[in-house]
Amino acid sequence: LQKLGKADETKDEQFEQCVQNFNKQLTEGSKLQKDLRAYLASVKAMHEASKKLTECLLDVYEPDWPGREETNKIAENNDLLWTDYHEKLVDQALLTMDTYLGQFPDIKSRIAKRGRKLVDYDSARHHFESLQNAKKKDETKIAKPVSLLEKAAPQWCQGKIQAHLVAQTNLLRNQAEEELLKTQKVFEEMNVDLQEELPSLWNSRVGFYVNTFQSVAGLEENFHKEMGKLHQNLNEVMVNLESEQGNLSTNSSNI
Amino acid sequence: LQKLGKADETKDEQFEQCVQNFNKQLTEGSKLQKDLRAYLASVKAMHEASKKLTECLLDVYEPDWPGREETNKIAENNDLLWTDYHEKLVDQALLTMDTYLGQFPDIKSRIAKRGRKLVDYDSARHHFESLQNAKKKDETKIAKPVSLLEKAAPQWCQGKIQAHLVAQTNLLRNQAEEELLKTQKVFEEMNVDLQEELPSLWNSRVGFYVNTFQSVAGLEENFHKEMGKLHQNLNEVMVNLESEQGNLSTNSSNI
Repeated sequence: LQKLGKADETKDEQFEQCVQNFNKQLTEGSKLQKDLRAYLASVKAMHEASKKLTECLLDVYEPDWPGREETNKIAENNDLLWTDYHEKLVDQALLTMDTYLGQFPDIKSRIAKRGRKLVDYDSARHHFESLQNAKKKDETKIAKPVSLLEKAAPQWCQGKIQAHLVAQTNLLRNQAEEELLKTQKVFEEMNVDLQEELPSLWNSRVGFYVNTFQSVAGLEENFHKEMGKLHQNLNEVMVNLESEQGNLSTNSSNI
Repeated sequence: LQKLGKADETKDEQFEQCVQNFNKQLTEGSKLQKDLRAYLASVKAMHEASKKLTECLLDVYEPDWPGREETNKIAENNDLLWTDYHEKLVDQALLTMDTYLGQFPDIKSRIAKRGRKLVDYDSARHHFESLQNAKKKDETKIAKPVSLLEKAAPQWCQGKIQAHLVAQTNLLRNQAEEELLKTQKVFEEMNVDLQEELPSLWNSRVGFYVNTFQSVAGLEENFHKEMGKLHQNLNEVMVNLESEQGNLSTNSSNI
């Protein structure tokens, strides 16, 4: 019965398009999640490397050099900015993404189930139609070929056998019709739900991309602006240290 | 002879301090170089990760969404800013550092050689002094003990043997004095050079740290400020896309 479905399977191009969109959306979302995770890892690594580089400056900064206090503060703020940036990226971009992608597995399995229910429905329809066609043929036929059972039976009971066969055929047809209605109902309930949900999920991608990249852009904007200021301060400390360098050198050489 | 040096080795506490400074300076410089290299590697990694994340946005950005052109430009500039930042860090901080650290191996081997030449000088001095002390002893002695050779020799040649011994002792002392002067000259030439160079190298550390961290700070300042602006632009593109989202959703669901 399963094999019959293929040829006269209900075509639904609009639904197929929805499924294509769904798959595209899932692929894109998963890739974005993977790349955001990699980005977060690189933020963490650069934070560590930046911290170590700043520690080098603190290590060589001798107590009598001017700007020592300010350099400590810059190092501290550098660390804080990186930590804050990473945390907020996780909270505002990664976690939202997890919620968004969390919808996909359930819908994916419902799409697969709808496919299986469609096969059942198509089989039931095909089965019922073939019984229906057989009945029509019987009714229009004038000379009916006699079955072996009828030939072998005595003349007096041949009418009864025929009545029995007709009743049996009717029973099978009724059962097939019931099965058809049942499978149709199951399929259509799933189908209606998905036909509503899939386009709505597909439309939600725009808002999701906007939210994600707006979060990233906003956090980056803030982070980079603060970092810019911090390094402007460090630059000033260095300029001041440079101008004091002459005095320092004389002192240090007298150790 | 080598063992004699230890006790009466020329003490030079000032020089020892210079060597301590030199070692500290080399350790600090090498650590800074290592940490800057690690930082550069992390910059490269974050550049790659940022590029991939931006490519995700370009991949999902549909042709009919507003701001597509601007997003392309932002992605391009993001890439350029990272590349430029990395290149300039290499040119302005890493290469200067290589030049600075390039001075150390030669001086380090000259410090070691000076140490060996000091041992030679101390040995020669000790040898000469011991011969000198022996001579003084001979001169101040009233009753000189007679050597076996003198005892065994006939009376008439004992004067000659003594004269021969005196001449031999003088010759050894002259040779030792020559050796002393030679080793002293070799040592002092090296010593004078290093005593000039080491404090000057030590003093140069301030300028070197200033240059390095000024370069880093200046480049970071510029990079972060530009990055801040770029992400401000991206944020605006996202805000605009969000406001157009309603129209987009309707269109997209009609595929």
